[in-house]
Amino acid sequence: MTRAEAEALDRADPLADLRSAFDLPEGVIYLDGNSLGPPTKAALARLRQGAEEEWAKGLIRSWNDAGWIDLPHRAGAKIARLIGAQSGDVVVCDSVSVNLFKIAAALLARKPGRALCVAADEFPTDQYVLEGLSRLTGAPLLRIVAGEVPEAAVIVRSLVHYKTAAVADMAEAERAAAERGADIIWDLSHATGAVAIDVSANGARFAAGCGYKYLNGGPGAPAFLYVRRDAAERLRQPISGWMGAQAPFDFSSAYEPADGAARFAAGTPPILSLSALDASLDLFDGVDLDALEAKARALGDLFLAAGAAAGLQPVAVAGRRGGHVAFRHADAYAIVQAMIAQGVIGDFRAPDLARFGFSPLYLSYADVWRAGEILNVVMARETWREPAFARRSRVT
Amino acid sequence: MTRAEAEALDRADPLADLRSAFDLPEGVIYLDGNSLGPPTKAALARLRQGAEEEWAKGLIRSWNDAGWIDLPHRAGAKIARLIGAQSGDVVVCDSVSVNLFKIAAALLARKPGRALCVAADEFPTDQYVLEGLSRLTGAPLLRIVAGEVPEAAVIVRSLVHYKTAAVADMAEAERAAAERGADIIWDLSHATGAVAIDVSANGARFAAGCGYKYLNGGPGAPAFLYVRRDAAERLRQPISGWMGAQAPFDFSSAYEPADGAARFAAGTPPILSLSALDASLDLFDGVDLDALEAKARALGDLFLAAGAAAGLQPVAVAGRRGGHVAFRHADAYAIVQAMIAQGVIGDFRAPDLARFGFSPLYLSYADVWRAGEILNVVMARETWREPAFARRSRVT
Repeated sequence: MTRAEAEALDRADPLADLRSAFDLPEGVIYLDGNSLGPPTKAALARLRQGAEEEWAKGLIRSWNDAGWIDLPHRAGAKIARLIGAQSGDVVVCDSVSVNLFKIAAALLARKPGRALCVAADEFPTDQYVLEGLSRLTGAPLLRIVAGEVPEAAVIVRSLVHYKTAAVADMAEAERAAAERGADIIWDLSHATGAVAIDVSANGARFAAGCGYKYLNGGPGAPAFLYVRRDAAERLRQPISGWMGAQAPFDFSSAYEPADGAARFAAGTPPILSLSALDASLDLFDGVDLDALEAKARALGDLFLAAGAAAGLQPVAVAGRRGGHVAFRHADAYAIVQAMIAQGVIGDFRAPDLARFGFSPLYLSYADVWRAGEILNVVMARETWREPAFARRSRVT
Repeated sequence: MTRAEAEALDRADPLADLRSAFDLPEGVIYLDGNSLGPPTKAALARLRQGAEEEWAKGLIRSWNDAGWIDLPHRAGAKIARLIGAQSGDVVVCDSVSVNLFKIAAALLARKPGRALCVAADEFPTDQYVLEGLSRLTGAPLLRIVAGEVPEAAVIVRSLVHYKTAAVADMAEAERAAAERGADIIWDLSHATGAVAIDVSANGARFAAGCGYKYLNGGPGAPAFLYVRRDAAERLRQPISGWMGAQAPFDFSSAYEPADGAARFAAGTPPILSLSALDASLDLFDGVDLDALEAKARALGDLFLAAGAAAGLQPVAVAGRRGGHVAFRHADAYAIVQAMIAQGVIGDFRAPDLARFGFSPLYLSYADVWRAGEILNVVMARETWREPAFARRSRVT
C-alpha cells in the first residue's frame, strides 16, 4: 500500500473524526493503546471537574450531588452496550484480578468439589487468581490447552488472547461448557472497545474486563464485571463489602446483597479514576462495533504487511483477530525500544514478542503506514542492535 | 470558652500553618474529614500532573518514567510512619473491604476449622467481609461484644470506633489475642492521621485502613494494608493477582509471591486516585502524631461543650477518644442537614447519631468555636424541624 492509498482510506473512514477527541502528544504514533489507552479530552476535563469542583467544593455532598454513588453503574451501563449486555448487568469496580476472583468464588460455591480451569498460556493474573482460589478452597486447578472444555466448575478464558489476539468462538465455547456443566468467565480485557462482542447473543453470563486499555480510562482505571441478571440472583460473592449491599447506609450488621450484578461490588470505588473512565466511555456513543473491529483489523493487516516486508515473523492467527498483532523475534525487546526511540510506541511481551495495538478510535491509516515505514528502517539499519536498547526496564 | 480564647489557642497551635496547604471552600466549616478529607493543593496539582503530563504525554512509558509501578510502595512507606510500621510493610492497594478479605483469608488458611470473629457493632463492611469469607470457607463466624477476645483464627477490630470514636487498647488486645491463639487485623480507617498509632510498639502485625478520610486522598482513594515482614513471609493471600507476584512482567504461568507485604497486592492500582493520595500524604511529613491527636481531642472537646450547652446528649466514651464526636438524637438526620444549611458539614450515622469530625490539619479552634455557636442557634431556634431537612438522601 502506498501512503496515498492509506490517506484515501482515512478520507473514507467513518471513525476518522474521533481522533480529535483525544489528547495525543506530537511526534508519537501510539501503538500501545491495547496496554494503556491515551486520554480523551473529555477524561482530562472530567478529572479537573471531579477534583477541583466535586471534591474540592462539593466535598462529602458530592456522593449525592455529583452522583458518585451511582457512578459504578452509570459507567457499567456504557460498557454494557459495548459487550452486548443488559445495562444493569455490568458494574465498574475493583481490578480484573479481584473481579475474576469474586465471580469464580461465587460460582465455585455452587459446585463444591469441582475444578477451576484455565489455559496454561492465559494472561498470568487469570491463572494466578484461580491458583489462589484453589489453594483457599481446596478445589482442584486444571491447567488446560487453550480451547479445551473439561468438566469443571469454572473456566476462565480470554475472548482475545493477550499475545496472539486470536478471538475465541464465544458461542461454541459456551455450548461446549454447558454440555459439561461448566461456567465460563470471559476475560474481555483485550477485547472490549476493539472487537464486536455480544454476550447476550452468545449465551455468555459472566465476564470481567479492563478499563485502561481500549476503553481509555486512564492508568489502572477500575475494571468491570458482567453477571447476567438471572445468574446473579442465585450467586453470593465472598468479598461482600458494603458497596455490594442492598442498603449500605443503613449500617446493619447482616449483609443483604444488592439486586443483580450490583452485589458483586465490594468496597468504596476510586472515584477520580472512575470518573476519567466514565468520561472516556462516552466516545463510544453511536460507534458501530463491527466498524470498530473492521478498522482495527485493517490497521493490523497494514502493519503486518509492513512487518513481512521487513522480514519479521508474525504470530500466526487462524481466523478472527483482535486489535493487536505480534512479531516473534529473539531481540523483540530491543526492537520495541528502537521503535520507541523513533516515536512508534509498542510493547514487549516476554520472552520474545514485539506487540503493537491498533486502537481504531484515534489511529489513522496514514499513522500506521508511517509506523510500518519506520519499522522497515529500524530493521534494515539494525538500529535495534544499539546497546542502549538492550537494557530491560522494570515494566516492559 | 470565648471566641478570643479560641483564637489564642490558634496562635499557639504548632499545626496552624498546615491549613494553607488545603483547598477549602469559602463559608464552610468542614467537620466531615473523618468521612471524606478535603483536597490538599498538592493533591490537586499532582492530579493535573498525573493526567496531563504523565498519562497524556508519557503514556505507557510512565509506568517506568513516572514511577507508577512503585507508587503503591512509596505511598505505603509514607503511611507506615503514621502507624509505626517498618516502611516496607505497608502497601496501598484495593479497598479496605478487599484488604481485610485478603489478610483474613491468608490467616485463616493457617488455622483451618477455627472461627472468624468480629463485634456486632463493628463497621458494617468489616462484618460483611468476614461473613463472606465464612460462607466461602465454612469457617464459623462469631459475632462478639466489642472487646471480647475469644479463641478464633482471626479477629477484625477497629482501633477507633466509627460511631463513638472510642480508641481500643491495642497492646492489651494483642496480649489477650496471643493468649488465645488469635490474630487481630486492625481496621485503622478512622484512626490513621487522627491519632497516634504504633503497631510496632504494641505488637500488632496486621492492619488495613482507609485513604480517603484523615489522609485526604480523595473520594474512594485506595486503601492500605499492613502485614509485618516476618508474618508476611509465612502467608499466602488468595487474590494472588499479578501485582503481588515476584516478577509480574516475566509473564510466567505459576504465581510466585513477592517478598513481604508486597504479596498482598492484587490487580493494577488506580494510578490517578493513588497519585492524589500520595501527594496528600506529604503533608504529614514532620508532623508529631501526639500533637495531632491532642489537637483533634481538644477540638472535639470544644465542640462537645457547645453540644452540652445546646442540650445535646453526647455518645459517652470512657478513656481515649479519636478524632470525631457524636450526639444521639431521634432527629439526628434533620439536625445534620440544618447544620449543613448553615455551612457546618457533619454527617449522620443511622439510626440516631449526628457525627462531627475534627481533622487537626486544617481546622482551627476558631472554626470549631464558630461551629459550636451555629449548633446552638440551630438547636435553640429548632430550624432542623423545617420539612426540607427531614428528607433522607441516598448517601447520608
